[in-house]
Amino acid sequence: CPTVLLLKWFLNRSLNKFYHDLFRQSARRFFQEEVIPHHKEWEKAGQVSREVWEKAGEQGLLGLMIPEEHGGVGGDLFYAAVMWEEQMYSNCSGPGFSLHSNIIMPYVSHYGTKEQIERFIPRMAAGKCISAIAMTEPGAGSDLQGVRTYAKKDGSDWILNGNKVFISNGWMCDLVIVVAMTNREAKSPAHGISLFLVEDGMKGFQKGRKLEKIGLKAQDTAELFFEDVRLPADALLGEVNRGFYYLMNELPQERLVIADLAIASSEFMFEETRNYVLQRKAFGKNLANLQTVQHKLAELKTDICVGRAFIDSCLQLHAEKRLDAATASMAKYWASETQLKVATQCLQLHGGWGYMWEYPIAKAFVDSRVQPIYGGTNEIMKELIARSIVSPK
Amino acid sequence: CPTVLLLKWFLNRSLNKFYHDLFRQSARRFFQEEVIPHHKEWEKAGQVSREVWEKAGEQGLLGLMIPEEHGGVGGDLFYAAVMWEEQMYSNCSGPGFSLHSNIIMPYVSHYGTKEQIERFIPRMAAGKCISAIAMTEPGAGSDLQGVRTYAKKDGSDWILNGNKVFISNGWMCDLVIVVAMTNREAKSPAHGISLFLVEDGMKGFQKGRKLEKIGLKAQDTAELFFEDVRLPADALLGEVNRGFYYLMNELPQERLVIADLAIASSEFMFEETRNYVLQRKAFGKNLANLQTVQHKLAELKTDICVGRAFIDSCLQLHAEKRLDAATASMAKYWASETQLKVATQCLQLHGGWGYMWEYPIAKAFVDSRVQPIYGGTNEIMKELIARSIVSPK
Amino acid sequence: CPTVLLLKWFLNRSLNKFYHDLFRQSARRFFQEEVIPHHKEWEKAGQVSREVWEKAGEQGLLGLMIPEEHGGVGGDLFYAAVMWEEQMYSNCSGPGFSLHSNIIMPYVSHYGTKEQIERFIPRMAAGKCISAIAMTEPGAGSDLQGVRTYAKKDGSDWILNGNKVFISNGWMCDLVIVVAMTNREAKSPAHGISLFLVEDGMKGFQKGRKLEKIGLKAQDTAELFFEDVRLPADALLGEVNRGFYYLMNELPQERLVIADLAIASSEFMFEETRNYVLQRKAFGKNLANLQTVQHKLAELKTDICVGRAFIDSCLQLHAEKRLDAATASMAKYWASETQLKVATQCLQLHGGWGYMWEYPIAKAFVDSRVQPIYGGTNEIMKELIARSIVSPK
Amino acid sequence: CPTVLLLKWFLNRSLNKFYHDLFRQSARRFFQEEVIPHHKEWEKAGQVSREVWEKAGEQGLLGLMIPEEHGGVGGDLFYAAVMWEEQMYSNCSGPGFSLHSNIIMPYVSHYGTKEQIERFIPRMAAGKCISAIAMTEPGAGSDLQGVRTYAKKDGSDWILNGNKVFISNGWMCDLVIVVAMTNREAKSPAHGISLFLVEDGMKGFQKGRKLEKIGLKAQDTAELFFEDVRLPADALLGEVNRGFYYLMNELPQERLVIADLAIASSEFMFEETRNYVLQRKAFGKNLANLQTVQHKLAELKTDICVGRAFIDSCLQLHAEKRLDAATASMAKYWASETQLKVATQCLQLHGGWGYMWEYPIAKAFVDSRVQPIYGGTNEIMKELIARSIVSPK
Repeated sequence: CPTVLLLKWFLNRSLNKFYHDLFRQSARRFFQEEVIPHHKEWEKAGQVSREVWEKAGEQGLLGLMIPEEHGGVGGDLFYAAVMWEEQMYSNCSGPGFSLHSNIIMPYVSHYGTKEQIERFIPRMAAGKCISAIAMTEPGAGSDLQGVRTYAKKDGSDWILNGNKVFISNGWMCDLVIVVAMTNREAKSPAHGISLFLVEDGMKGFQKGRKLEKIGLKAQDTAELFFEDVRLPADALLGEVNRGFYYLMNELPQERLVIADLAIASSEFMFEETRNYVLQRKAFGKNLANLQTVQHKLAELKTDICVGRAFIDSCLQLHAEKRLDAATASMAKYWASETQLKVATQCLQLHGGWGYMWEYPIAKAFVDSRVQPIYGGTNEIMKELIARSIVSPK
Repeated sequence: CPTVLLLKWFLNRSLNKFYHDLFRQSARRFFQEEVIPHHKEWEKAGQVSREVWEKAGEQGLLGLMIPEEHGGVGGDLFYAAVMWEEQMYSNCSGPGFSLHSNIIMPYVSHYGTKEQIERFIPRMAAGKCISAIAMTEPGAGSDLQGVRTYAKKDGSDWILNGNKVFISNGWMCDLVIVVAMTNREAKSPAHGISLFLVEDGMKGFQKGRKLEKIGLKAQDTAELFFEDVRLPADALLGEVNRGFYYLMNELPQERLVIADLAIASSEFMFEETRNYVLQRKAFGKNLANLQTVQHKLAELKTDICVGRAFIDSCLQLHAEKRLDAATASMAKYWASETQLKVATQCLQLHGGWGYMWEYPIAKAFVDSRVQPIYGGTNEIMKELIARSIVSPK
Repeated sequence: CPTVLLLKWFLNRSLNKFYHDLFRQSARRFFQEEVIPHHKEWEKAGQVSREVWEKAGEQGLLGLMIPEEHGGVGGDLFYAAVMWEEQMYSNCSGPGFSLHSNIIMPYVSHYGTKEQIERFIPRMAAGKCISAIAMTEPGAGSDLQGVRTYAKKDGSDWILNGNKVFISNGWMCDLVIVVAMTNREAKSPAHGISLFLVEDGMKGFQKGRKLEKIGLKAQDTAELFFEDVRLPADALLGEVNRGFYYLMNELPQERLVIADLAIASSEFMFEETRNYVLQRKAFGKNLANLQTVQHKLAELKTDICVGRAFIDSCLQLHAEKRLDAATASMAKYWASETQLKVATQCLQLHGGWGYMWEYPIAKAFVDSRVQPIYGGTNEIMKELIARSIVSPK
Repeated sequence: CPTVLLLKWFLNRSLNKFYHDLFRQSARRFFQEEVIPHHKEWEKAGQVSREVWEKAGEQGLLGLMIPEEHGGVGGDLFYAAVMWEEQMYSNCSGPGFSLHSNIIMPYVSHYGTKEQIERFIPRMAAGKCISAIAMTEPGAGSDLQGVRTYAKKDGSDWILNGNKVFISNGWMCDLVIVVAMTNREAKSPAHGISLFLVEDGMKGFQKGRKLEKIGLKAQDTAELFFEDVRLPADALLGEVNRGFYYLMNELPQERLVIADLAIASSEFMFEETRNYVLQRKAFGKNLANLQTVQHKLAELKTDICVGRAFIDSCLQLHAEKRLDAATASMAKYWASETQLKVATQCLQLHGGWGYMWEYPIAKAFVDSRVQPIYGGTNEIMKELIARSIVSPK
């Protein structure tokens, strides 16, 4: 009966909003209690603790969008968004939850066999199997077509060789999805790429050093080395030589995540700065009373509100499975540029204190600098957007 | 019964979308048939014809948002938006329809007496009474508190004296709403401002020359002079000394209109430019094949899509009567800056042709230059936004 | 004797400075007396008078850098610069003096035969032979390699066919240097280009309409058509097929001229704006008292001073024949971008008045818009600069 | 005899250029041999070694501009500039040589008594007395008028109390010039400020922790605390209550130093980036072959060349004692903004590697972020520039 369906839809809509808000409080509490107090120490260590992953798992904060029947939480996109936004509002970039939950788990859930799903998803949702994805190689950058890592068929097994770099969660990961060539003769590299599930401890799989970065100090970015790693047949994720298409399918969500992280971080930085200039004195008045400071705040706030409207519309489109690749690229490019601009200017409004690590804006600034780079550099985003303009399908 | 209400609401929503799209075709046809063919000649004349106003009236294109019972069309905000967007897509800035329909008619409809409404609205909707609003004065700029025009009580009449400048529709107008001081002793000028309905032909009301502008060549911007103009009691619009509050109420809609004009014009310019670079050759290939041109297009398109999402969300908020003044100011400021940036860069992509009047981008560029200025300069917008940041209610 | 030489050099240096300053006063007086009073009328006419050319000639203001023995004034680069700077300070873009004196006359002087020099230079210096140069073609833009105009050898004569567009001084010119292909089989178009001296009145040489532009209203930009124009052997300027190299030699000076025009115009606009905000009231105080206005002025002034230092250093290098092509391109690109930015922002500081033609800033703004385009678009400039970076000789 | 004078001047000019170039090689060698090999370790330590100071002293690299008769090297401004530029070219921001030599030593040399000069300058030139200047206070920022540190007369002694923050060389310093109030009743704070020479080890003088910063990792920025520090009469530098004027005199040089550091660092970053994109592959070609990369390089190079011309002209003016405060502020503001922009974009051209500490661009980026802040924030610079525009003497 359409009336009942309609009523249900309407009810759902209202309830969802209510539940998302409720969930936001839980997520916020989690970051306040389990993340903020430890973050400084994790920054020193260059990685977070395994405990925080398990606690997040216990509280049902990992794999929010993954269906319950797969072992996930079974929420919608907006729960996941609440979680990653709250992480930004806590200014704690250490735990790579969002990458794990919203970028890697979907690969397993979407392309995995029943066995692979049963084997990994519940442990991933519990925070006991930390995951990473290994795309970038030392010589290839954001260019998937330059992949040199190679998996050679050997009976029903595969022998994997190659190096990867800039792998977030790379040092702690128990599971890594490795992008590798499986057919070097393919007409285009895109037709010869496959994905493999590689586990920590496999013979020949070595983690290199944790890379020292400008920011993201508590995040364990690493190099990975694969030397004659023998993979069983069931390490292949999805079909052979279809990896490029899986990546193309999943990348828009990755880019949307980065975009919303960017706006959420901008919102955080703006509030920090607003509070700072409201209490800080200069020349006998509050900084917030200076006209130039006020106009700067107005400009920043406007950029952020404009970005928020855009990203919210993208989230809505994505929830309806209507977000195209070009729009996701726009979101990633525009939002990350805005974040960097906001960070640069909010730091400036803090004067000398903005340069000191102890001030939240300092950390938010250095963290922001990577956003226009990873997930496909903004230059790659422009290539993708341009393609849709000059040669639309 | 709530089920019926819900069904109605849902039906409405779908039908509205359908009707708005249908209406867009009519509006587009009107500009193609009645405006574009004459615009060049109007640019020379510095004004449009009275006929085009009457034709717009006949086709029901004026006063779209004004209630039917007042003599308007009785549509919603989205019909009005379709109309002004289509004007931008025609690149014909001459006829001051939007100002008349969406900025001035609402004053009469909202604050007018039954007699005033009956007297003016039907003629305004018919395009037989062209209207203007006279705020700015030679010495005051966007600053309402500097108004010097003064209406002095004389029995039940008022005697109006003062000068106004930059009045769009000023040369052709049959009716002008004049912002005047009526109480010079008020604690704040805001408490002493009233609005008056002044008609062409009244003794002492003189129109100055049409001002020569950089762009908006077909729009009759004029100075107005009031010298001992005797106004009957029923020329007062609304209550005495309440004018400032009426203006504050109506200005968000004016700013939203300007913002959507800005994005619509940007969309027009982008398509013009896209077509230009797709066919234009340089160095043996199409301009559109150059990587720098492609990235520039990607940047422009992104800015426009971001702006479109923001303005659409503002339109929705305004339709729900939830658009606050600060957000309207953000929309006006951000969208007009974006339009100017888009115009500047799209012109550049046209090379020498972009500087030639015969190319649409040339006209769109010079028209765009006024948008950050009128409707309250963008600097005033920043003041209003800043106020909501540093001293929120 | 080196001491005498050194003394002479030192004396010269000091005297030159003195004479340049003296000359600046004459140049300024010329623009004030002979140009400013007529400019409005010339803007309407779309061209200046022949009289102003002849008066400039009488006063020795044309061909300042051309050697006396060729019939020029025999001054140095700095006299020429004073002249074009003063034209910018008068905000009168109408008379194409600088193009004539510093871009076209040098071609004749550098590459002309004794007969050609004697025939043209004295009349050019007298303002009786107005000159233009015809490079750009409707389909080629800033790309010299796309030249289609063709001069075919016919006995000792040449038969010229082709169209040119955007030709400054094109409507009034008595002499035009036409860039044409003379060898279509050349390995590269660069080896097949020649220059021709074409005179008004030659059979088959037609001037098209004066192009209507956004700005430069008093400047006669035109299209030129050549249909089987028979040119005698002595119409060839320099050697056959060497035209590309002549252009490469002369373009740095053209770009330097545009760059200095840009900074001079910026200086003019800044002073206009400074004066405006110092006397203009808003919110009960002078605009110049607002902190945001002050910082904006500081930013503009800084950009202009930085640019002035750079351009002065380029002038000095050029005077010493040490200005390379890449640096000249930097000057053109950077200065014209700065001018456009300064124009856009100075106009904004004028509020509504800035959009009115009667205000000097309005004219300066629309004039500024062409600077990043002509003389080689700024995109071409970047190509040239980039070449010197990624593949230096 | 004027001829001899002139000859001398000319000879000097040529020789100077020669000697400056020669000196550049020594300075470069020093950084390569004595600084670069240790810098990584100093970054970890948060400070440099005392040895490097003494080695610099031995090689005559400290106090280059200080007169020989005071115990300095007796060079001109250009030697000093060579030294600080070479430090930037080495990308080693650790040793605070430039602050010591060109900002602090001049105070002692200009305002010190014979005894003070004899006591400190030779040791400072030898690198055995490391110096700092303590202006900024936790609550006052770049605003000298907010100084709260107070020196109270007690007999012929002074009792100093107060806190200072962001003091470069603050942890290692043997000598610190402290800005303190000495007359709280002065009409304006400017009339009540004095400078004191405070030595490490004085009772009540405590160094706080080394502040952890975003960048400048090897530089020991510290807080300083003064609690009832008893200073003898001869700790006063110059006259009592004249400190503000001394600061005003010396600040232009400080700002010029920062400006030249900014351009030198930009030059370094550009060369790093040029080399990177020339060898780095993407999509099967070198990055340097992409048109967007080429145009970006052209834009950066242009900004840097423009800045170099400006700063060189400022250096020349300063050498002639003609650099005014407003121009020095322009140099500091413009050059540091440019540096930050160059850093941001050069890092982007490095892709993911740009975010890794091991790449020189990463360090240069985070170092650049402080430049618009210290030495007077760029906002303060704009205030000073604006003053010279709206109320010139």
